[in-house]
Amino acid sequence: MLLVAVCMALLGCLRAQGLQGHVSVVLLGATGDLAKKYLWQGLFQLYLEEAGKGHNFSFHGAALTATEQGQEVVAKILEALSCPKDVTPDRCTELKGQFQRLSQYHQLKTTEDYAALNKDIEALVQRQGLWEAGRIFYFSVPPFAYADIARSINGSCRPGPGAWLRVVLEKPFGHNHQSAQQLAADLGSFFHEEEMYRVDHYLGKQAVAQILPFRDQNRKALDGLWSRHHVERVEIVLKETVDAEGRTSFYEEYGVIRDVLQNHLTEILTLVAMELPFDVGSSEAVLRHKLQVFQALRGLRRGSAVLGQYQAYSEQVRRELHKPAGFLSLTPTFAGVLVHVDNLRWEGVPFLLMSGKALDERAGYVRVLLRNRACCVQSEARWAAEQSACLPRQVVFHIGHGALGGPAVLVSRNLFRPALPRGWEEAAGPPGLRLFGRPLSDFHVYRPEREQDAYSVLISRIFHGRKDSFIATESLLASWAFWTPLLDSLAREAPRLYPGGADHGHLLDFEFSGGQLSFSVQQAEQLVPGPGSAPTPSDFQVLKATYRDGPLVTAWAEELIAKLAGDVEAAAVRAVRRSGQFHLALSGGSSPVALFQQLAMGHYAFPWARTHLWLVDERCVPLWDPESNFQGLQTHLLQHVRVPHYNVHPMPVHRHRRLCAEEDRGAEAYAEDIAALVANSSFDLVLLGMGADGHTASLFPQSPAGLEGEPLVVLTESPSGPRRRMSLSLPLINRARRVAVLVMGRLKREIALLVSRVGHEPRKWPISGVRPASGQLVWYMDYEAFLG
Amino acid sequence: MLLVAVCMALLGCLRAQGLQGHVSVVLLGATGDLAKKYLWQGLFQLYLEEAGKGHNFSFHGAALTATEQGQEVVAKILEALSCPKDVTPDRCTELKGQFQRLSQYHQLKTTEDYAALNKDIEALVQRQGLWEAGRIFYFSVPPFAYADIARSINGSCRPGPGAWLRVVLEKPFGHNHQSAQQLAADLGSFFHEEEMYRVDHYLGKQAVAQILPFRDQNRKALDGLWSRHHVERVEIVLKETVDAEGRTSFYEEYGVIRDVLQNHLTEILTLVAMELPFDVGSSEAVLRHKLQVFQALRGLRRGSAVLGQYQAYSEQVRRELHKPAGFLSLTPTFAGVLVHVDNLRWEGVPFLLMSGKALDERAGYVRVLLRNRACCVQSEARWAAEQSACLPRQVVFHIGHGALGGPAVLVSRNLFRPALPRGWEEAAGPPGLRLFGRPLSDFHVYRPEREQDAYSVLISRIFHGRKDSFIATESLLASWAFWTPLLDSLAREAPRLYPGGADHGHLLDFEFSGGQLSFSVQQAEQLVPGPGSAPTPSDFQVLKATYRDGPLVTAWAEELIAKLAGDVEAAAVRAVRRSGQFHLALSGGSSPVALFQQLAMGHYAFPWARTHLWLVDERCVPLWDPESNFQGLQTHLLQHVRVPHYNVHPMPVHRHRRLCAEEDRGAEAYAEDIAALVANSSFDLVLLGMGADGHTASLFPQSPAGLEGEPLVVLTESPSGPRRRMSLSLPLINRARRVAVLVMGRLKREIALLVSRVGHEPRKWPISGVRPASGQLVWYMDYEAFLG
Repeated sequence: MLLVAVCMALLGCLRAQGLQGHVSVVLLGATGDLAKKYLWQGLFQLYLEEAGKGHNFSFHGAALTATEQGQEVVAKILEALSCPKDVTPDRCTELKGQFQRLSQYHQLKTTEDYAALNKDIEALVQRQGLWEAGRIFYFSVPPFAYADIARSINGSCRPGPGAWLRVVLEKPFGHNHQSAQQLAADLGSFFHEEEMYRVDHYLGKQAVAQILPFRDQNRKALDGLWSRHHVERVEIVLKETVDAEGRTSFYEEYGVIRDVLQNHLTEILTLVAMELPFDVGSSEAVLRHKLQVFQALRGLRRGSAVLGQYQAYSEQVRRELHKPAGFLSLTPTFAGVLVHVDNLRWEGVPFLLMSGKALDERAGYVRVLLRNRACCVQSEARWAAEQSACLPRQVVFHIGHGALGGPAVLVSRNLFRPALPRGWEEAAGPPGLRLFGRPLSDFHVYRPEREQDAYSVLISRIFHGRKDSFIATESLLASWAFWTPLLDSLAREAPRLYPGGADHGHLLDFEFSGGQLSFSVQQAEQLVPGPGSAPTPSDFQVLKATYRDGPLVTAWAEELIAKLAGDVEAAAVRAVRRSGQFHLALSGGSSPVALFQQLAMGHYAFPWARTHLWLVDERCVPLWDPESNFQGLQTHLLQHVRVPHYNVHPMPVHRHRRLCAEEDRGAEAYAEDIAALVANSSFDLVLLGMGADGHTASLFPQSPAGLEGEPLVVLTESPSGPRRRMSLSLPLINRARRVAVLVMGRLKREIALLVSRVGHEPRKWPISGVRPASGQLVWYMDYEAFLG
Repeated sequence: MLLVAVCMALLGCLRAQGLQGHVSVVLLGATGDLAKKYLWQGLFQLYLEEAGKGHNFSFHGAALTATEQGQEVVAKILEALSCPKDVTPDRCTELKGQFQRLSQYHQLKTTEDYAALNKDIEALVQRQGLWEAGRIFYFSVPPFAYADIARSINGSCRPGPGAWLRVVLEKPFGHNHQSAQQLAADLGSFFHEEEMYRVDHYLGKQAVAQILPFRDQNRKALDGLWSRHHVERVEIVLKETVDAEGRTSFYEEYGVIRDVLQNHLTEILTLVAMELPFDVGSSEAVLRHKLQVFQALRGLRRGSAVLGQYQAYSEQVRRELHKPAGFLSLTPTFAGVLVHVDNLRWEGVPFLLMSGKALDERAGYVRVLLRNRACCVQSEARWAAEQSACLPRQVVFHIGHGALGGPAVLVSRNLFRPALPRGWEEAAGPPGLRLFGRPLSDFHVYRPEREQDAYSVLISRIFHGRKDSFIATESLLASWAFWTPLLDSLAREAPRLYPGGADHGHLLDFEFSGGQLSFSVQQAEQLVPGPGSAPTPSDFQVLKATYRDGPLVTAWAEELIAKLAGDVEAAAVRAVRRSGQFHLALSGGSSPVALFQQLAMGHYAFPWARTHLWLVDERCVPLWDPESNFQGLQTHLLQHVRVPHYNVHPMPVHRHRRLCAEEDRGAEAYAEDIAALVANSSFDLVLLGMGADGHTASLFPQSPAGLEGEPLVVLTESPSGPRRRMSLSLPLINRARRVAVLVMGRLKREIALLVSRVGHEPRKWPISGVRPASGQLVWYMDYEAFLG
């Protein structure tokens, strides 16, 4: 006991004297491939860098392998370590000897093994009269082993009070949002957030690690440029020439999006897009700003991606995974994805993420292309590369490989001369090389004085507690939350087949337009028989027929929405020509969202400045509630078009901070507003939907409110939540000049069939009461709803 | 009488039989330069084209020259006429003989001369047993002569009922908006709008005349491309190598903007930007759509243009206009102007207009450069010109001269294959030629089968009544209304001097950013001593001092606004961090407009989604009235940032469709809203101004409302209109956490000095009552207001 007390006191003294403590590094999976190839070398590097500064280390290789055998393997690995170039062979031998003496192998299988390791470390520290600074556990093991190891470390191998614990985890960190949450919860029961270091080794690549420092050191030059006003596009690209042969059992489960885009490319995106923290050295600030980028990402849709698969892939899967002869994999080996960061800095700037296997070259880069803002008066023959502002201006973080063969940062000479970062030097490339549309001589080129392997960089950062080079749980889950809906929507999509190698020609080139990606060239003939293709919308024409004695427009969803948007615009133009105004009443729900988006995107001649927007119905929730119909209108339409504030008429469901209180007379007030602004209370166009129970607006079967007579705007009760609603009444709807009913999706088949046959029975089917007195009623149904 | 009756009856018969009538063309100024060079040739061309179709002509040259002498001159001109290439010399002699027999010279000086001409024409028509279809009077005379000639034609030379009159006018059509209005009014008293054909000869250039037909014939391909979603920029360029020598008496009055931009380049802009009429053959529709473009043009500001003057110009002016030795002209001979068409189709797309004399080449073109929307997966070395979507895509209307040496339409081959217009043929250019960044072989190139002079084209269009090829009065005035404010604001601006010829290097290159243009390279040393330059804002620093015991920030207007915007953003970020919301109350008037624009442009990190906007005061007018403070906020801020609809709180000055009726209790309702949403009714920031009479918000001297006690929001009376106001009270303002008072301009000097000395006397000077109880008051004054 006395000994312990002395020791504790001593520890205080040692710390007080500023002496460095002892750090134990435990490498789990010490005999595996990753350890052999990178991790031991990284630890040696750490030792070389830090030991001289007074840090004290011990290194513990661990695995399931029996002790003697494990020792042999580790000894061999250590023997093969290499020193930096500037170290003489003799000195290298000496340094390796020192490192080998600090390193030992442990078999770690049972809880007792961990307890024993714990004792070993404690004894070692005491023996040397040191204090313990912390322990690093590097998990270089398959994910299924994580939980047991984590439990054992937490239970038996935590350092004493005052010393830190850092556990280093390798991907995969889940397969989708749900599994990532589960894994995070599992780990979270053993470790605190600040103890976990999730590795994305791309964050250790020198050019990637340089992004924030570069932005910081060139703040003055970049401040004015790093935004939608100046950036035309950002490309984040990782092309590989290898294919997945030999790894299909992994690859078939993951595919290119999970393998590369969800992690590496997304991390890079956040580094480019984040607001630059005042102090880029603050891990907390960097992680917080990174999270803000995730919050600003626009949701991905099916059309946000193009997918490819190299032609030999399915055959490789059949062979390696013993699949039947007819098996065709849908796993993409190539993807291009269009990402939008929907904040004021980046709104509208395309971030193009692209990666694939079996492509024509191996290359990785981030390219920020600035808009050409210049107008050069001379004829272009006279432009000189160094000076003309009319030549392309770009900043490239060249991650590796490609024509440059390694990490580099390139800045167009007509842009600015960047500050030279510490450890980087100006360099020339191979003469005659052209990159990104220009000769290399058009760029300032910087390369690291010493190329470093990503794992060495990261191991050093773990040691220094630089959490910003690792994936925080919040970021990880945010990334999965972002990617999972796309992965789900693509799950049954057949990727375009490409030959592999340099032969793919333009087959994989893609283009973006209206927030969607598509391949530039139409699908050539299938290289192998595809898994059967469904008819595409454009194979069909918009059909006109009748329904309930009214005109019926029917088509696949996409065409139907396009036709409806065109009809709405035409009605608007007519109304404005006639009366100077267009009064449009819109329903909430999901079907109109596509219409809103269509109107926001393509209808330039729409007279928005003269349009009044009214709500057909509203839920009794505050307008900023995600359930509010108004909120949908706000998000999908109002943010994109210029309707004056005072022409927008949300329903007053939240007067005096109360929801639909009778005494607030919100419904009456709305009716009065309509009477005051809309001639004869006759809307130019009312857009309705139809529920599977035959309801329309918020007028429900078996409920008399709003079906006839006064009042013109009513409070109603929905059978499903939120129950309380405000709605235009049928008599008011039937005063409109034109009513459009939009019915989409197979869930509407039954009711569509039923309503086609019933008469005027609004109490059973309120939709059957829609019969404009002197206006026109048009039905818009997609094939899914109509072709029962 | 009988004869007349028979003749009238006969006329009916002739018309009824579909026979063409007689057209008289009177060329005023028939012996002048323009007539010699282009107009007689154009008339001969018209004769050749139309006579064969049954039209019957007489041509009347007229001038002040005595008859015999005039006849001689005209005879010489007619003798020199040339026939189309495919006409044999014999046939040409024959055709010229026919034309000469139909042409005669008249001296036109007095009213009697015009009456005599009228008689001659009537006699001629009768003699030939024809009916009169119409008369064309072509004014090829200086503008000062217009009024007299117009009066004479109107008084003595109109054709009889049933026949049309067309008068053709040559520019200049005024010198600014006012003079153009005057000229239009003068002409309008003699001629109907449909009788006037104002010539802009650029509308007769074949490539310009091709713009609308090209857009029409390629509607399908262009429909999706011709908008802000796809067009990166539009360049409209007219470069000349000649200078103004010998013409400085004209040029010194006009300068390049009036000479080229206000007319030629603006007309071309409207043809590119207009919504394409359904029927491009309808003059009325084309003119209407052209007017819509003018309505959508964003107003030009000082910063919309860069100006240059070739170095020898002032010396030429001194010599030709006998100016004193020290005279320096400020007339620009080069201008680049950034135009924005602020509608949904073109919002944000820069239209760059550029023209100059004494430049390195002669060339005219319109270039529509499309955005690069593609991402090409292959390494760029493999891109092939014909196919890669990653190479530039552009449509060029090449007006003339330049490397192509004549009119042409170019369409990038990776874009689409355009429909071949009638009379145009596919052509190859000089081999090895590069244009617009690409080899010419990258383009589909079309050229007219037969090059036609602009005047021949226009004379034919006058004959066919195609008014859309001419400048309607409304268009003309709209164009002057657009250009005049810029011309006024540039009137005292010293243009940058350039050497002339090919030596100007990058001196004239310019760039756009944030709606402003600036030269790309900083001004090199003055080539000749400039007329003295005022200190520019950036020569000064923002100064901090105190005023009325509060912090004072003072600077030139531009820096001051930048500083204030930064402070507002910082306050917003702090408030959102503290409470999740930022409540900002804004004043109306002109000073805040610059602040709004600054906030809208550059503050990406501003938490708009969590900002509530309140009004400090409002005029009792509808919110959509241009006088409304809210309208200013809407135009300059709300349209550009994303504040949710329900976070915007206009003052309820228009409840129940009445303006500030006491019984509508709008002020009370606003106070209640504030109390409900703003914690403790304490705004995070209130922005105030200060009137020259010491008023602030809408709280006026000698009026007790709102100066103390309850209520917190009041109705007040302004000494100037609109008199009735709603305003936050001083007690409410003084609850704020921070109050900023913005004072700008020399009109505020006296009051600023006075208020610096007075104590707390809100009844005399309401601004002196602004004393936040626990918040901070900061004064922002520009040097003009502060340095008395």
